[in-house]
Amino acid sequence: MEIRFLGTGGSIPTGFRASPSVVVRRDEELLMFDCGEGTQVRMASCGLGLNKPMKIFITHMHGDHVLGLPGLIMSMSLLGRTRELEIYGPPGIREFLESIGRILGYDPKFPISIEEVRAGGAVEGRGYRVLVEAADHGIPCNAFSLEEGAKREFLPERAMELGVPKGPLWKELQLGRAVSINGRIVEPSQVLGELKRGRKIVYASDTRPSEPIMSLSRGADILIHDSTFDDSRAEEAKEYGHSTASEAASVAKGAEVRALILFHLSPIYRDPAPLLLQAKRIFPNSMVAYDSMALEL
Amino acid sequence: MEIRFLGTGGSIPTGFRASPSVVVRRDEELLMFDCGEGTQVRMASCGLGLNKPMKIFITHMHGDHVLGLPGLIMSMSLLGRTRELEIYGPPGIREFLESIGRILGYDPKFPISIEEVRAGGAVEGRGYRVLVEAADHGIPCNAFSLEEGAKREFLPERAMELGVPKGPLWKELQLGRAVSINGRIVEPSQVLGELKRGRKIVYASDTRPSEPIMSLSRGADILIHDSTFDDSRAEEAKEYGHSTASEAASVAKGAEVRALILFHLSPIYRDPAPLLLQAKRIFPNSMVAYDSMALEL
Repeated sequence: MEIRFLGTGGSIPTGFRASPSVVVRRDEELLMFDCGEGTQVRMASCGLGLNKPMKIFITHMHGDHVLGLPGLIMSMSLLGRTRELEIYGPPGIREFLESIGRILGYDPKFPISIEEVRAGGAVEGRGYRVLVEAADHGIPCNAFSLEEGAKREFLPERAMELGVPKGPLWKELQLGRAVSINGRIVEPSQVLGELKRGRKIVYASDTRPSEPIMSLSRGADILIHDSTFDDSRAEEAKEYGHSTASEAASVAKGAEVRALILFHLSPIYRDPAPLLLQAKRIFPNSMVAYDSMALEL
Repeated sequence: MEIRFLGTGGSIPTGFRASPSVVVRRDEELLMFDCGEGTQVRMASCGLGLNKPMKIFITHMHGDHVLGLPGLIMSMSLLGRTRELEIYGPPGIREFLESIGRILGYDPKFPISIEEVRAGGAVEGRGYRVLVEAADHGIPCNAFSLEEGAKREFLPERAMELGVPKGPLWKELQLGRAVSINGRIVEPSQVLGELKRGRKIVYASDTRPSEPIMSLSRGADILIHDSTFDDSRAEEAKEYGHSTASEAASVAKGAEVRALILFHLSPIYRDPAPLLLQAKRIFPNSMVAYDSMALEL
């Protein structure tokens, strides 16, 4: 699983921080969170491809989080995408896409499903689900938690001991089906290790620090959290429904996540060092997202 | 006068050619032609500024020519623009901007005038006008000709001979007002050279080669013309309402322009050399636009 930060800036895109978009690549599927202006170009330059199975999750209907969507859809269609594209967003997302499509007269040549989601909702995927929680941003705004199902690891040495040769029979066991070796049955449970919880990534942009977000983030491997301002601008953060670096760090600490990624920085921070220092004081395993940053998980 | 090519590619933006947008900086005013996705960032990185007097001319309602407009307007508002922004485009431009504004809930803090223009229309500016002609692109599509008024050049040495000292009196004469020197009247005509025609720049993207465009382009200093395909794809050019490099060159030759800029190249041309060679065979003073290219005129 790889997390790609295509854009990491808030409100106004700049040459050093594009509008928000994060893509999680999981097996062959892409899960995109937000789609600011220019996302399609950065997607292509990261080699992510436009004809993969894909779900797009939109937090809220502010331009910097959604204005890249029409162009992305148009380019996918021009480039011959055939697979369905699933879009999950707040109320308004359907009207937005349908209005623009009608006015610009484009009619994508692949199916698009649009679902308006709210706090408490969940989107099921193959081996994972995405939970929806309410962010605190003044308008309807979602935060998302991508959670893989618990899995038992396949133990090759155990399979060898039981006389199951490497090959298609291993695949059967991995898929949870018993196999027969010289009349003897080997059950999947005999070659699988302990149940291990799956990975968990939370995307919370834009938002004030909040109890529901902390609760959604409980034990996450990665928390990507609004960190629009440094602590000297706490009042602005409050006024505009954003978080400071310290507030993001407090959520990370309270939720006992493994790592915090400071995200959605205001364009006033050419140098993000102050935000990082402030966050690290509260939650040491903090880092600042930058455009094109990739994390392997 | 400076022409800045912010984006020069057709249909799908890439890392090497962004969606179309050209800005003419004339005195303190910016005249933008088309506004593809991502234009605002490239405008800022060219130092063009978001609070200048500005007119935006949109050719047609295809996404790659117009999807940068909402984000540009939002950023202008966030950055405190106060001046009116004038937008001239095809039918649909008003509904496009108003729908997106309503759905995304943004309400710019500066006045915006939107005028739907058609062939035969003209927009008057200070010392220039922009004529509108119909492009041939399958849907309503404008081409624009920016034409400065004819001007007489001020001759400082003539003013000196007539005893008018350098300073505010020169300004008066340049503004066309007579001045008095020791009771003697000096008329502006006495210190001005011959009438010289102003500069002329034509922006014709997207279009098939056509008589009306050739006529609009007559004697232009610069013709920026659709050149989506090389000659081997003449059928595609025809089918999609675009021009080949040779077709663009034929328009330039027929209209006796000074220079042709090949524009709106398909993303299939990582190397634009074939298009340039084909155009030069017909019209030697051809060049290929590239992103961030600046021309002084």
